[in-house]
Amino acid sequence: MKAIVNISLKEGVLDSQGKAVHHALDALKFDSVDDVRVGKQIVLELASDDAEKAKAEVTEMCESLLANTVIEDYAIEIIA
Amino acid sequence: MKAIVNISLKEGVLDSQGKAVHHALDALKFDSVDDVRVGKQIVLELASDDAEKAKAEVTEMCESLLANTVIEDYAIEIIA
Repeated sequence: MKAIVNISLKEGVLDSQGKAVHHALDALKFDSVDDVRVGKQIVLELASDDAEKAKAEVTEMCESLLANTVIEDYAIEIIA
Repeated sequence: MKAIVNISLKEGVLDSQGKAVHHALDALKFDSVDDVRVGKQIVLELASDDAEKAKAEVTEMCESLLANTVIEDYAIEIIA
């Protein structure tokens, strides 16, 4: 079982990496870009077979280690 | 229009960040984790209204700036 965790900075938190990428795209003449946000994607391979249990466990991982919940949001997707 | 770009290290390329996260999860007694891969997720806000054109442009951005295609794969998702 696979779990995909997408971690992004919360709205309103300054995303300096996103700003830098936006600036670099501008310099390369990609003018149609209005905004860039850079986040993390963590793919976990899990031994568990129970999707509900897996999601609960990954949520715990996010809260305790993977995400900084003060400034980051996370979304979990479980793939069988 | 929104484009989500997921960038991950190619199979076989050592993912030291993933290894470190796996190790930390082990230390926190999350024993059911078999493997961890850490990638990037870049969310682009685009002015364009044409999904096909947007995808072509984002592909160009990936090839020229966003991804290091020697060691990284990328996947593009366009959301209206």
